[in-house]
Amino acid sequence: MRSIPPGDTLEYAFEAKHSGIFMYHCGTPPVLHHIGAGMHGAVVIDPPELAEVDHEFIFVQSEVYTGPDGEVGDYSKMQRSGWDAVVFNGYVNQYQHRPIRVEKDQRIRVWVQNNGPSENCSFHIIGTISDTVFKEGAYRLRPDESQGGGQALDLQPAQGGFIEFTFDEEGFYPFVTHKFASAEIGALGLFQAGDVELPDGA
Amino acid sequence: MRSIPPGDTLEYAFEAKHSGIFMYHCGTPPVLHHIGAGMHGAVVIDPPELAEVDHEFIFVQSEVYTGPDGEVGDYSKMQRSGWDAVVFNGYVNQYQHRPIRVEKDQRIRVWVQNNGPSENCSFHIIGTISDTVFKEGAYRLRPDESQGGGQALDLQPAQGGFIEFTFDEEGFYPFVTHKFASAEIGALGLFQAGDVELPDGA
Amino acid sequence: MRSIPPGDTLEYAFEAKHSGIFMYHCGTPPVLHHIGAGMHGAVVIDPPELAEVDHEFIFVQSEVYTGPDGEVGDYSKMQRSGWDAVVFNGYVNQYQHRPIRVEKDQRIRVWVQNNGPSENCSFHIIGTISDTVFKEGAYRLRPDESQGGGQALDLQPAQGGFIEFTFDEEGFYPFVTHKFASAEIGALGLFQAGDVELPDGA
Repeated sequence: MRSIPPGDTLEYAFEAKHSGIFMYHCGTPPVLHHIGAGMHGAVVIDPPELAEVDHEFIFVQSEVYTGPDGEVGDYSKMQRSGWDAVVFNGYVNQYQHRPIRVEKDQRIRVWVQNNGPSENCSFHIIGTISDTVFKEGAYRLRPDESQGGGQALDLQPAQGGFIEFTFDEEGFYPFVTHKFASAEIGALGLFQAGDVELPDGA
Repeated sequence: MRSIPPGDTLEYAFEAKHSGIFMYHCGTPPVLHHIGAGMHGAVVIDPPELAEVDHEFIFVQSEVYTGPDGEVGDYSKMQRSGWDAVVFNGYVNQYQHRPIRVEKDQRIRVWVQNNGPSENCSFHIIGTISDTVFKEGAYRLRPDESQGGGQALDLQPAQGGFIEFTFDEEGFYPFVTHKFASAEIGALGLFQAGDVELPDGA
Repeated sequence: MRSIPPGDTLEYAFEAKHSGIFMYHCGTPPVLHHIGAGMHGAVVIDPPELAEVDHEFIFVQSEVYTGPDGEVGDYSKMQRSGWDAVVFNGYVNQYQHRPIRVEKDQRIRVWVQNNGPSENCSFHIIGTISDTVFKEGAYRLRPDESQGGGQALDLQPAQGGFIEFTFDEEGFYPFVTHKFASAEIGALGLFQAGDVELPDGA
């Protein structure tokens, strides 16, 4: 690893030895400043014999630390974990404004990667329980005689996994980090199952 | 889901398809305000063939955000995660004032649900190790050849599970969230195993 | 348990019934003040038939709350989770100044115990994936047909476990809690794999 000036490129070649969802990020110091300004992403390596699903989505949760107009994020806010927003895939509430369309009874897999740099993620889809949970390279829940259900996937920064579920009825299903102080500043989206409309004022 | 005025009721019928402990909460926006003011609870669906125990308890951890006298909780405190107290089953230190009586050598199951809205829970019983841990629908630890012991059950908001354990000796056993800044503002209770008395000043 | 005056000793005898890594700490109230001032440690009980490795290390993560010169830590900082540093084994960045020397292709086990009192730990070694993860008394990941990889071990206060991994190439590998606001105030160290030198300015 080494730092490069703006405009340059640096290529990494690697053999995917392990399955899962993994964070990548800028390693130029101060790393907190770079990740906090959005220099990060995720890569998914499917486990062998991953089950077929109807839809597969990826949500990367991260924080936003706004700086002055036209400038990069405020480093002092990053240092004191004083984020202005918590987002999925980079934008505040983008999937609330444009819900993700699926159909009821479809099998859906959602990969979630928490890139932080500092906030946790407790990923939950309101109105839905998961029967399959994969976290940090291992299945944590699969259908079995316990008939267990997962309500939230807990991820500290740099952790990831996926959940699988089905919407049994048509409607809108909000997804959030269930740390509600963070859900209310951007980390909330909607799944739309079926040809339904949001009620007025919702 | 829809909002209703004070005094009205709304009935939800559901089929329990999954086992575990699950949070329910008011969905009227702003959800953070409602959960933060105590509009939440938990429901337990026993996994099939759940082992027999001598005692079973449920602790719901949540935060308290005090408002002005006679008014509901302070929303701005909720928004900045500035809780005044962290509690089990709604009251500061209630099980410190009235310890939960059990006997030594009894098998005890404690369900824990973290309803937040925003704080984590690292549930631990001081002086005791669990040999069985169930979290988010799956057993994470059961007696086996590794002879592993669980010291704390980690729950982010909207997560739940249970631990099983036995007190080998008579005495008082404090239980806490082991994030001690939160334990010291209300999230501390006592088990009393046997006919013992607290030492003076404890 | 009982409190003792400075200079006295108190001996605890216990039978190790469970395997894992466990926190011990001073129980004199206020416990937050004692843990926050460094009155804590860890004990490891090896699981039976633990695999052979080339190196085994233990890192205890904790927070530092500086007080006035010559005095113990600032209790009010502890109460508001306002730590000044987050450290491994008691000192800011000690393993950045003195990297831990290993060789490439060696099998390494790192035990991690988060003693808090209040901050989380998301333990990650930059540039490395674990194929074996043990947390709170149970294996969470072992080499199998899923070929899963663990990037971070999530520990709330009073939790512990271990990871196993190998450095495939010579070089320096930073280890951090990947909550980067905490990594940048002390919770960062280096492994040195092979006879390599840090680049200037690194």
